[in-house]
Amino acid sequence: MNELFAATAVGSWKLIVSRLDERLGPLDEEQLQKQVAPGKNRLFYLLAHLTAVHDRMLPLLGIGERLHPELDDAYITNPDRTIADPLSASDLKKAWNDVNAAITSGVEKFSTEDWLKKHTAVSDEDFAKNPTRNRLALFLNRTNHASFHTGQMALIK
Amino acid sequence: MNELFAATAVGSWKLIVSRLDERLGPLDEEQLQKQVAPGKNRLFYLLAHLTAVHDRMLPLLGIGERLHPELDDAYITNPDRTIADPLSASDLKKAWNDVNAAITSGVEKFSTEDWLKKHTAVSDEDFAKNPTRNRLALFLNRTNHASFHTGQMALIK
Repeated sequence: MNELFAATAVGSWKLIVSRLDERLGPLDEEQLQKQVAPGKNRLFYLLAHLTAVHDRMLPLLGIGERLHPELDDAYITNPDRTIADPLSASDLKKAWNDVNAAITSGVEKFSTEDWLKKHTAVSDEDFAKNPTRNRLALFLNRTNHASFHTGQMALIK
Repeated sequence: MNELFAATAVGSWKLIVSRLDERLGPLDEEQLQKQVAPGKNRLFYLLAHLTAVHDRMLPLLGIGERLHPELDDAYITNPDRTIADPLSASDLKKAWNDVNAAITSGVEKFSTEDWLKKHTAVSDEDFAKNPTRNRLALFLNRTNHASFHTGQMALIK
């Protein structure tokens, strides 16, 4: 029962990540420079933003160390087009794939108890008050966050 | 344990719905006519689309009969601006709130067994092959779908 609950949540994550892979995988450097709407974020920025946010999940979920902390400055701290892209499209795609593979592999090893542990961004006090602030909540939240930006990317035909 | 898993998933749904409420609740009829980007869907269309899709969740999750099947033609079957809006902004907001309240109330009564039952759009054969095609999967999928369109709406400041 518990295993099926967790497997369903992981299935939802995999589906969202695979849709992004299908959408962005075939695009080249130039195509990734397109903005999702006039004056809005580029596809490149959004993919790098998601890579950085997913990379942060590794310590938050207790899976391991970050793989690409160097992305935060350009893609989390600062808005698009303020800092020159520090990596190529092919390096970005590799980072995206590596980070997601590490998360998927990590959560597939979680026991039910692991899923219900607090994530590391919540204090002990807050977690005692609200035990739904667990790793599953963070995982679902980030899946929704990826969907949020996928919706923006989908505005480009 | 099981209750906490389900409560976490419901918490994720409530968070996404409440963010949409905060974003769209204060907007009037005219503001809801804005397109999320040039030539793209209006906020009104997207809110009605989400209302219709969520309304369909009621029978799919075995909660009950649909409340607003009349929205499908204008907001699921057809793209934006092909059919005149059959309802006012205030009626749409009421429908949106009523549908989400019915779903939230319904899923909060689910037992673990209920969550893991197949949803009604899957055949018995397919469900036997893949038991993650359950009500929880549909519920997470629709939460992601709402996030997808929320990302588009967020392009309007």
